[in-house]
Amino acid sequence: MSQKSLDGFYRESELPLLIKRRGMATWENDSVVILDRRKLPHSEEYLTCRTTEEVALAIESMAIQGAFSISIAAGYGLALSMLNNYSLLSIKEAGNRLISTRPTGLALSRVINLCLQKAEEAINHNKSPKDVVLDLTTKVASDLAKQARRTAQYAISLIPDGASILTHCFPDRSYVYLLLEAKRQNLNINFVCSETRPYFQGTKLTSYCSSEMGFKTKVITDGMGGALIREKKIDIFMTAADRVCMDGTIANKIGTYQYALAANINDVPYYVLRQSGPDVESKSEDDIKIEVRSGEDLTKLNGLDHAPKNVEGYYPSFDITSADLVSKIITDRGIFEPKKIYSYYDSDSFVKDSLI
Amino acid sequence: MSQKSLDGFYRESELPLLIKRRGMATWENDSVVILDRRKLPHSEEYLTCRTTEEVALAIESMAIQGAFSISIAAGYGLALSMLNNYSLLSIKEAGNRLISTRPTGLALSRVINLCLQKAEEAINHNKSPKDVVLDLTTKVASDLAKQARRTAQYAISLIPDGASILTHCFPDRSYVYLLLEAKRQNLNINFVCSETRPYFQGTKLTSYCSSEMGFKTKVITDGMGGALIREKKIDIFMTAADRVCMDGTIANKIGTYQYALAANINDVPYYVLRQSGPDVESKSEDDIKIEVRSGEDLTKLNGLDHAPKNVEGYYPSFDITSADLVSKIITDRGIFEPKKIYSYYDSDSFVKDSLI
Repeated sequence: MSQKSLDGFYRESELPLLIKRRGMATWENDSVVILDRRKLPHSEEYLTCRTTEEVALAIESMAIQGAFSISIAAGYGLALSMLNNYSLLSIKEAGNRLISTRPTGLALSRVINLCLQKAEEAINHNKSPKDVVLDLTTKVASDLAKQARRTAQYAISLIPDGASILTHCFPDRSYVYLLLEAKRQNLNINFVCSETRPYFQGTKLTSYCSSEMGFKTKVITDGMGGALIREKKIDIFMTAADRVCMDGTIANKIGTYQYALAANINDVPYYVLRQSGPDVESKSEDDIKIEVRSGEDLTKLNGLDHAPKNVEGYYPSFDITSADLVSKIITDRGIFEPKKIYSYYDSDSFVKDSLI
Repeated sequence: MSQKSLDGFYRESELPLLIKRRGMATWENDSVVILDRRKLPHSEEYLTCRTTEEVALAIESMAIQGAFSISIAAGYGLALSMLNNYSLLSIKEAGNRLISTRPTGLALSRVINLCLQKAEEAINHNKSPKDVVLDLTTKVASDLAKQARRTAQYAISLIPDGASILTHCFPDRSYVYLLLEAKRQNLNINFVCSETRPYFQGTKLTSYCSSEMGFKTKVITDGMGGALIREKKIDIFMTAADRVCMDGTIANKIGTYQYALAANINDVPYYVLRQSGPDVESKSEDDIKIEVRSGEDLTKLNGLDHAPKNVEGYYPSFDITSADLVSKIITDRGIFEPKKIYSYYDSDSFVKDSLI
């Protein structure tokens, strides 16, 4: 009989790969095992990381991605720093290394800071900080899975039968739970996945989940979404958000802004699957730091130069979409008007003692 | 001493490869020799086409691209149908084959229809239709080069020193003449070239020309232009147009619309380098047929599957931008308000007896 999944509802065997336990990161035999998302959909390969640095590199190199997924890999990665000789100082150094990997989403730094705090308490009480951090990370993973499923239950109420849904990048677990919910309700919906250069998360991850579950799925280039919206071929634009500010501004994979703009001008709703709350420390756009990744991701293709030699690549990973371009932000605590997302904290958590 | 170029002003040796005679298509020893743009910038390879069908395939497979460039290849390609046994019927069949290659831009069908008419007249007067078609095509190539240079002379007046110019796809010869003119005037401008999936014309052709001529050049993905416009990192958005309607609507490489929208909302001018007039037979958007190319261009990468097996690619080549999103249309007869582009025909051609 298959193991229960992290969400406590489905069995592991019922879930698409990307939201199974092993579809993210797991702790196995004193290592962190990470599904290498860059190799999907044609190859299912796992990285076995035995040091914090190896986990940090796996996150930086996009073997695992998504603001929430990387926070789980990072939590387990922190535990690796406590396997042998460790001190509070070395644990903190490991934590800082992990926090430095991807600065735009905040889930990772929140998880690591919480882990550091609990590790310090454990050391002060002569307990194993490693066990505390492992338990904490697994609890966060479980919280996130439950919140994602709850978010999807809210989101499904916004999806009419027959809808064509445009996605950009991989909208993480809430999206996969949305697919499961749509299937349960026998909704006949279809997906248009923007390929999401340069890592092709749209082609490799998003279209993989929807097609694996039997939904009609097309991929397009990142240049096409606006035109399809204009031609009334899209009913809903939907993404995750790596960061949500208290004023409803969102940061998400670059390319989101221009689709949101086209959706707004053409009266197509843009729904953000957040699965958690806004970041209380981010009041507005001014508080968002946009990660700029290596330009080589654009000047090389499959490892080979394809740009002229004097041309640089420029690769900011995220862009900013202001609240007025977002129709709804969907969370585990309900559906919010973007400008009222701050009121998320007025209601109780769906997940008891949620850590994120 | 280097040969004069098609524009009658520069010498061939002074021009970047893409606007040299051999940068497009030439007639050599009863064949059409076409620079294979797919192999640029790292390899300069030429296809030698000995039949009309080979030219048609070179156009369809994007070895040569751009509404005006393909019309020259097609004109010479038609002449190939008159090398040995031919009849008016076989010539017309060859013409129809060429016209069928790319339906959205109209220059190709206009050149071919003109060639067919002149070939028929030649046959009726016992002249060689091949020679007539070759002369006509070379005259069109020369007209286009002169018009492109003239267009650039108008366009340069709109480019302030220090400007950052965002491009999408390859804006054809007018753009290269603009670079030459900017260099002559010592303008310090820089280019941000949207890579233009799936064929990467932005990376392979546009960034190649500007960097080859010493302008600072970056490439970005097709998802990034809107965000950079929003961040005030772009001063001008500039493209060619495969078709311009009499009401100022333009069709250009897909991806243009969403950049034009972002430019409009953020008060960044969008200039269209047309180098010729609007199409008199296209009154409005309703008259534009958008070519849909093979979805495999999106589901495969470098010939290998990279999408899941049940996922289709969807690849419309062009999108539509309405006149209200265009700031100016720049032609060989001056700079026009988009909604007044019909008045292009009120003024005389810059090129005497221009055929296109």
